[in-house]
Amino acid sequence: MAAYIEPRILKGFRDFLPAQEIERRNLTEKIEESFRSFGFVPIDTPALEYTEILLGKGGGETEKQVYRFQDAGGRDIALRFDLTVPFARFIAGHRSELTLPFKRYHIAKVWRGENTQRGRYREFTQCDFDIVGSGSPAADFEILLMIQAALSAAGAGTIKIRLNHRGLFNRFLAYIDAAEHSTEILRTVDKLAKIGRAETASLLQEIIGKDKAEKTLEFIEAGAGDNPLAFEDTLNLIEKAAGGPCPEAERLRIIRRFMMDTGTEGFFILDPSITRGLDYYTGIVFETFLDALPEIGSVCSGGRYDNLAGLYSKENISGVGASIGLDRLIAALEALGKSAAEKSYSALIIACTDEMLSGAYQALANRFRVRGIACEVLFEAGKVSDGKALTKQYILAEKKGAKWLAVPGSNVLSDPLTLRNLEKRENSEGVSFDEAAAIIEQS
Amino acid sequence: MAAYIEPRILKGFRDFLPAQEIERRNLTEKIEESFRSFGFVPIDTPALEYTEILLGKGGGETEKQVYRFQDAGGRDIALRFDLTVPFARFIAGHRSELTLPFKRYHIAKVWRGENTQRGRYREFTQCDFDIVGSGSPAADFEILLMIQAALSAAGAGTIKIRLNHRGLFNRFLAYIDAAEHSTEILRTVDKLAKIGRAETASLLQEIIGKDKAEKTLEFIEAGAGDNPLAFEDTLNLIEKAAGGPCPEAERLRIIRRFMMDTGTEGFFILDPSITRGLDYYTGIVFETFLDALPEIGSVCSGGRYDNLAGLYSKENISGVGASIGLDRLIAALEALGKSAAEKSYSALIIACTDEMLSGAYQALANRFRVRGIACEVLFEAGKVSDGKALTKQYILAEKKGAKWLAVPGSNVLSDPLTLRNLEKRENSEGVSFDEAAAIIEQS
Repeated sequence: MAAYIEPRILKGFRDFLPAQEIERRNLTEKIEESFRSFGFVPIDTPALEYTEILLGKGGGETEKQVYRFQDAGGRDIALRFDLTVPFARFIAGHRSELTLPFKRYHIAKVWRGENTQRGRYREFTQCDFDIVGSGSPAADFEILLMIQAALSAAGAGTIKIRLNHRGLFNRFLAYIDAAEHSTEILRTVDKLAKIGRAETASLLQEIIGKDKAEKTLEFIEAGAGDNPLAFEDTLNLIEKAAGGPCPEAERLRIIRRFMMDTGTEGFFILDPSITRGLDYYTGIVFETFLDALPEIGSVCSGGRYDNLAGLYSKENISGVGASIGLDRLIAALEALGKSAAEKSYSALIIACTDEMLSGAYQALANRFRVRGIACEVLFEAGKVSDGKALTKQYILAEKKGAKWLAVPGSNVLSDPLTLRNLEKRENSEGVSFDEAAAIIEQS
Repeated sequence: MAAYIEPRILKGFRDFLPAQEIERRNLTEKIEESFRSFGFVPIDTPALEYTEILLGKGGGETEKQVYRFQDAGGRDIALRFDLTVPFARFIAGHRSELTLPFKRYHIAKVWRGENTQRGRYREFTQCDFDIVGSGSPAADFEILLMIQAALSAAGAGTIKIRLNHRGLFNRFLAYIDAAEHSTEILRTVDKLAKIGRAETASLLQEIIGKDKAEKTLEFIEAGAGDNPLAFEDTLNLIEKAAGGPCPEAERLRIIRRFMMDTGTEGFFILDPSITRGLDYYTGIVFETFLDALPEIGSVCSGGRYDNLAGLYSKENISGVGASIGLDRLIAALEALGKSAAEKSYSALIIACTDEMLSGAYQALANRFRVRGIACEVLFEAGKVSDGKALTKQYILAEKKGAKWLAVPGSNVLSDPLTLRNLEKRENSEGVSFDEAAAIIEQS
């Protein structure tokens, strides 16, 4: 009685079969290509770090979710739960080796012991890109432009980036004398889309009273909604509400000018309700929605922060960055039918009618590969006596997901081929190598 | 008194700075491209699995090295220490979703609490590729051909794959009546290169006595050495030593034929001393050495195994596979001066002489990007009054590692550019966009 171990995986974790993994690779490769075209460079950091590094002063939800344990040497270690904290540690540790401004991307797995009942994964890929060491509005704008270029390259179509300035919101709160409650107000406002206007109003009233709550709602709803005002008009409204001309409004005007100069203004909405709940943002903040599927939520969010590495170094390094939600983006592309889930990279499969010719089949395959045509060979001829050997090869080739099958003659490298279009199930007889390669290249 | 957390990382773990990460990406991208051209498809599996799955019947060195802990739900879990065990579990769990033969590659991180004093890393990348579900010698040969193609694509130059057949060795041991000690003998022979002939002989004598030890040494040294015999001659010698014609020798003859048919015979040596210590190989086994740097050791090893998923399923699935040692390969390429460590993907940097023109600089950059030229813009003009603003941009651009710098006029999109060759430190004045793009494309 053999006892097999059930081949199960942990809840919240996933295997990626070839079709899924090819889909993910296709997407990340396009995004990476886009990052590189803007001069962003990749880094990598360890999956495991000292818990002290990852949790810093710690506390809260994060600490409960982290995979934390003692290694064999008794060290208190943990799996990274995001790419921001390791990046901060990286910047502090490698400051002297980096040229500022430093533009990096990092696409890697992170782990969180999330409640899987909410459909969350415990292992997922983050895709972060940041510019650190420049306080310039040009850096803010490049991150925004990068989002548009990366999502366009990913095939996500046109987008709307909803933009705001955290500093302008804080200035408004100071102006209405509510600055001391700014953290609670930010957290409440950040939930607006989720909990609705009425509950937001009621929560705000509890914090700062009816009058200020109304002013706050008026501020965050300025120019927004389904038919938002022009960027400048909204900007004028909130600038006034925050007490008149100020550096933050001026910065948004400069960024607006950059939009006009690149002809990208159609991708942006100034939306004062965008605050991002997290405390560390100090400048622009933004969320990104697909025009074709806004209801799936933001596929890329971020903002400007001061003092990234403050926990690990006394040097002040500010930056601006964003994170693409790959799982959500893939779900969106699938829902929009824009995700070509391929089973294989092979364009062509070479049939096997005589197993002793496998070397020659590989030599033929290599001629196609040299032409840039990904090509695989079948290994087994099947029983020739049953008369169905070739049919079985057709079926196998179709399952593998290639478009073309070549059946060589007995002089593999010199005889003409039979070329089968596996989608149309049509054969062309007597095709030369060059003709076959040309047909495949043009398809 | 601020208390900073020292930004240290765990011993045996590594950060990858951009130059290192770009080097690793360049390498794995070339290898992946090569895998894809042969029809191998990627998969991915979780970093964390049930310890029971990863350790199976467990025991030995592996168990001591694994990062193992209890998660918040009390599950006994561990980080994967290789990609073979998760692949076996994957095959057993997804058998019905896969078309056999199944050709997969998997490039991913693994973790082992190795003794770092031996220069080992505790986190490293494995690069495995396997064909499962075919017992054909054509599958064996494709793995061998794939090694040659992948290492050639990686820029490693010509190679020698030292090949043997574990089954033929076992047949020899049975023929000299030493089969019952095969595991110990295999482990001993596998250490030959490390411990030398004399100690191997002495260890073998302890196991099977002087006479059989001498026969074994004669077998494993047949045809090998610095001037190895031709493949067929060695094969004839060991076939005879193993008792005459047999299926294993016949299989090696077929594989040899495939080598001749592809003109790749120069890459292969039949070397009976190659046994691979691990127990699970049953057919061909091999190690790969760079002609330019054989002393660095094998950069790609593997073999044929039976019953991959036997721990998790009663279905017998055999396969053949190999693993490229990326760290060793990178070290070899660096030693050979074949590793072009780039700091950046950018070909061109656009200077900033007026920060208000940053939008226009991005519009110009985008024209280059559309032409396929990776291009980044600088954000800050520096103090124009000090007269050195442009010099500072030259220095920054050189540090970033690009080859070209463009200085636009005040009408960014229409004025001619100054194009600086950063390597030669030469400026060309009055260059149009098209001229600049053509110069960069041709460089």
